Amino acid sequence: MSQDLLQSIERPDDLRALSPDELLALAAQIRERMVAVTSHTGGHLASSLGAVETIIALHRVFDFSFDRLVFDVGHQSYAHKMLTGRNARLETLRQNGGVGGFPKRAESLYDVHDAGHASDSLSIACGLAVARDLNGGSEEIVALIGDASLSGGMAFEALNQIGHDRRNLTIVLNDNEMSISRNVGALSLYLGKARMSRSYTLARDTVEGGLGRTGRVGRALVNAGEAAKGSVKKLVVPGMFFEDMGIKYIGPIDGHAIGSLEEALSAARQFDGPVLIHAVTQKGRGYAPAEAHPELYHGIGRFDPETGVPENGACATPSYTDVLGAALVQEASQNDAIIALTAGMTRGTGLQEFKQRFPERFIDVGIAEEHAVAQAAGLALGGKKPVVAIYSTFLQRAYDQIAMDVALQKLPVVFCVDRAGLVGEDGATHQGAFDLVYLRSIPNMRVIAPYTARDLRRALHTALSVSDGPVAIRYPRGATPCEETPYGRDGDAAAADDSPATAEDAAAAPLSASDSSLLPLGRANRLRTGKDLALLALGSLVPVALDCARLLSRQGLEASVYDMLWVKPLDREAVRDACHTRLIATLENGSLEGGFGSAVLEELASQQRFPKVLTFGLPDAFIEHGSQDTLLANLGLTAEEIATRIVQKLDE
Amino acid sequence: MSQDLLQSIERPDDLRALSPDELLALAAQIRERMVAVTSHTGGHLASSLGAVETIIALHRVFDFSFDRLVFDVGHQSYAHKMLTGRNARLETLRQNGGVGGFPKRAESLYDVHDAGHASDSLSIACGLAVARDLNGGSEEIVALIGDASLSGGMAFEALNQIGHDRRNLTIVLNDNEMSISRNVGALSLYLGKARMSRSYTLARDTVEGGLGRTGRVGRALVNAGEAAKGSVKKLVVPGMFFEDMGIKYIGPIDGHAIGSLEEALSAARQFDGPVLIHAVTQKGRGYAPAEAHPELYHGIGRFDPETGVPENGACATPSYTDVLGAALVQEASQNDAIIALTAGMTRGTGLQEFKQRFPERFIDVGIAEEHAVAQAAGLALGGKKPVVAIYSTFLQRAYDQIAMDVALQKLPVVFCVDRAGLVGEDGATHQGAFDLVYLRSIPNMRVIAPYTARDLRRALHTALSVSDGPVAIRYPRGATPCEETPYGRDGDAAAADDSPATAEDAAAAPLSASDSSLLPLGRANRLRTGKDLALLALGSLVPVALDCARLLSRQGLEASVYDMLWVKPLDREAVRDACHTRLIATLENGSLEGGFGSAVLEELASQQRFPKVLTFGLPDAFIEHGSQDTLLANLGLTAEEIATRIVQKLDE
Repeated sequence: MSQDLLQSIERPDDLRALSPDELLALAAQIRERMVAVTSHTGGHLASSLGAVETIIALHRVFDFSFDRLVFDVGHQSYAHKMLTGRNARLETLRQNGGVGGFPKRAESLYDVHDAGHASDSLSIACGLAVARDLNGGSEEIVALIGDASLSGGMAFEALNQIGHDRRNLTIVLNDNEMSISRNVGALSLYLGKARMSRSYTLARDTVEGGLGRTGRVGRALVNAGEAAKGSVKKLVVPGMFFEDMGIKYIGPIDGHAIGSLEEALSAARQFDGPVLIHAVTQKGRGYAPAEAHPELYHGIGRFDPETGVPENGACATPSYTDVLGAALVQEASQNDAIIALTAGMTRGTGLQEFKQRFPERFIDVGIAEEHAVAQAAGLALGGKKPVVAIYSTFLQRAYDQIAMDVALQKLPVVFCVDRAGLVGEDGATHQGAFDLVYLRSIPNMRVIAPYTARDLRRALHTALSVSDGPVAIRYPRGATPCEETPYGRDGDAAAADDSPATAEDAAAAPLSASDSSLLPLGRANRLRTGKDLALLALGSLVPVALDCARLLSRQGLEASVYDMLWVKPLDREAVRDACHTRLIATLENGSLEGGFGSAVLEELASQQRFPKVLTFGLPDAFIEHGSQDTLLANLGLTAEEIATRIVQKLDE
Repeated sequence: MSQDLLQSIERPDDLRALSPDELLALAAQIRERMVAVTSHTGGHLASSLGAVETIIALHRVFDFSFDRLVFDVGHQSYAHKMLTGRNARLETLRQNGGVGGFPKRAESLYDVHDAGHASDSLSIACGLAVARDLNGGSEEIVALIGDASLSGGMAFEALNQIGHDRRNLTIVLNDNEMSISRNVGALSLYLGKARMSRSYTLARDTVEGGLGRTGRVGRALVNAGEAAKGSVKKLVVPGMFFEDMGIKYIGPIDGHAIGSLEEALSAARQFDGPVLIHAVTQKGRGYAPAEAHPELYHGIGRFDPETGVPENGACATPSYTDVLGAALVQEASQNDAIIALTAGMTRGTGLQEFKQRFPERFIDVGIAEEHAVAQAAGLALGGKKPVVAIYSTFLQRAYDQIAMDVALQKLPVVFCVDRAGLVGEDGATHQGAFDLVYLRSIPNMRVIAPYTARDLRRALHTALSVSDGPVAIRYPRGATPCEETPYGRDGDAAAADDSPATAEDAAAAPLSASDSSLLPLGRANRLRTGKDLALLALGSLVPVALDCARLLSRQGLEASVYDMLWVKPLDREAVRDACHTRLIATLENGSLEGGFGSAVLEELASQQRFPKVLTFGLPDAFIEHGSQDTLLANLGLTAEEIATRIVQKLDE
């Protein structure tokens, strides 16, 4: 059959007319297109490949223009997007103005909720069910949640209410035996035993018990009871965990058998109360490279669709993530106290090598940021040096634990805040916009934002040397600058204009010290000296500030440029020095509402010094998807735009 | 026996010498002293009363100068404090410089962790256990957690790892069938069934199975197995939920029988792997008024120890909590869409009447702030008007959900942020210092901080009228000002100096409009006009600003005073007007690192206006316990101190 089958699906309703064979062909066409598109755009391929049949079955049993389908995270939503009117635009996936990589209400009435952070689908569905019942509505509420998301405590909080309230609600547990990293935890072991306890082929047509009319599925439930009678050894009864919570369990079923899925979904639909369907799927299904390396294809950049080989970016430098991972291995080889923690993101946070080298000192808690941070507090209380590596946006989940369990007690926990600032294609739920705000307001916290790979290594070394409180190191997604010319001096047309103005400048340039040298606490690096204005820049906006200074220099305006490094403690002396010019501009890849720029304003107020000030950073808005460069340009965070605004301001 | 028995306990070791009768007498003496002290100091009495025998047994079986005892929240820690060298100082409980109301590392080596926020004990204990095993240590790790804390998702995240790792660790579940409000959720139902499934009197001395040597407890475990064989109806097998998670279950046992407790603890100590002991206790045990009204005595102010009758404060005005609760009932009676949510704090957030009047529109999720907020998002998606009432400090737990599940989607959820600013005696873990920072940085959010009862009612009405995004209303712990003279003009020696300077001032005073009138979005109230300086005040610091203005007026300095009301959107015009004076001072009961004062600085920077600015608020530190007035005075947040600093600054 041709690609036409997929193209013929204008609305999910159209799925109902297809024969079983056509459904199989459709699934294949969906996968083919997913691979073709993501090979150009990048994306969360492996999860979406694994959920194709589940999505098809859901749209055949329910009518989600009336019923509500709530995704969790939404990594598995591509087939859903393709079947709900967005197939034609799929080439724009994750591109600015194009189809987003996660469910988005603004895109389609079939997207109930803007997903992106894990484990919230059950809470959203619970709220929708309460609202429906109060409204006297009859829509079905379905949540689709992966096994990894189930390890988030919030999902348990929701199960606790769902099992108690017993409202009609269907939970589809998409168990791909694998989260982003291989899954962890007792619940995962439990699901594993449930998976192995019975074949996916259910005894058929035996009617027994309350769910009898559902045929094979009803039989499966009865089977569970029989298994229980036969043995009380723990963990052998699939679903008792959920049944104990008051939630009817159906499964395990083969999540690639559309017929079984439809049967289970229909049974759930008819059951009076909450039901969990345990569907077992294969991550990466149907695309051999992704089946072989599901973790690699969890979130992948451009790749060759024929071979599956990822494209190498133009940049040959390692990513910040890689630099951090390697540096942490290096540190750990010399310091037994170091323990690395990740929340389901071993690869994403660059800890694969650490995990291999020091398995006993590596802890993956699954998607459970709160527990990761509080456990780190316990480790520190036990004399260890915990290093918690979590993306900026996900660390929001542990804000309270950072404050209460770590900072209040002045415990020496190191936070590696990866993906800080704009991340790009993953969009609004993944931008690391707020960490500077929420971290710097926490007493006893230190916050550093290194720009060069060398400073990142030194920041880690410095953070590990601190014994009287936590240190957060924030760094962006993407490649570090070239080691030899981190500030782009060589090969830059403007480089000749940029020789250090003074001996002091030369000394300040970080060229000779070893990477294991400590970064002085709260000390900025002055990279350039100019009498007219001062650019106080942070992290990934340091090179923008330098470029801006070069542009201004051509117009006769000489700018000092500081790589501020520390947001907390702030370099008060650098701020004071900057006041000797006519204008201070702050540059940060983070929210302007309470962020680094505000810290500078607070410092200026406390020093009672008021030159003209411009603050450049992320506006008070959620930033949608697009490449980092596109987004920065849209927001006016380029050297040219910043220079223009500075000149305007100086002319006022 | 006399009070001497308690006084004779210098260290927990001394408990070992006591006979069973003496232990009973000691427990009685501990309770007597708890009641006597808290009748003067206020405190978390009911929980501590219920845990006396558990604490005694723990200290007899373990040596917590070597082993580690991790409290959860620590409401139940008073007996522990009395038995670990702090009995003589107990009169200073919760007073500035005195014994804290929660476990605190700085107080005693027996306090492992500064507790205060719920559900973290298992994570801390997990971290301690990992550290111990890596260190090759042999100390026992014990976590004492209430059934209410177990509903927090973070506890589940920790169980997930604990059950997987199978390290030695003892969890004592102090199940008092009641959290702060009566407990909720499927797990609570499950525990209830477990409680009723067997008598607390365990069959004795029958040895069977791996735990046989532990006698009665071993038998209890075997019983569970037999119960399972006898019936597979769900929920009848106590502990299978925990066993499914890989955690050995012992119980239920009578948590007031020291002998049973010691037996269970000894069994857990000998078992190789994680054990949960399910101890059933009575909240308020041994003090009739607290037994009868455990929720009232959960956290209680001064009371008559003979009768249990709480003292009425000197102030006859209702608390902010009461005003909010009554106003919400009023609103809900006219708007069916309103749904109130609390996270285990029905009474604390003033929702008792709402719960009674509108039970079907009232949701208590238990201690599960994340789920409360995300569920509210689901309710809003379902067309409802959710109102989430949570203390400022506990709302930190849901920071990510506020941003991602609510604000990103512009959902009209109203947050009632109670206990904002300094709360006083509950200390560092309970001060509401950070909400202005973390809320105002969230795009699409509005934040209002009313000072008068009338403005609180109007703020609620206004927030409920907003349909395109969330609104947070923050208000302090304590009494609202007198309705007739909210700004203290009457009965104030300085009142005569304070007649409105202009007709505009009089108009600005909120006297006549009905409480159901809307507060204009982002509009401040100017309460006083003066040419020399401007005081921009927020919430509970509004009267301080007025007093300060009166003091300054006596020195010939005339101050404008603004009740700013809105932190977001900020009243830009008010800020502009304020710039026409020689100095702007901001006053807030919240952190200065990114808070309201910083918002004013940001606005000044964007307007490029720079008068002298002073920002008054909470410093970059965790604030310990003490009365609100004492703490404010310690921090220089009095009218006198602020006036002095202003005069100094103007003289510079």
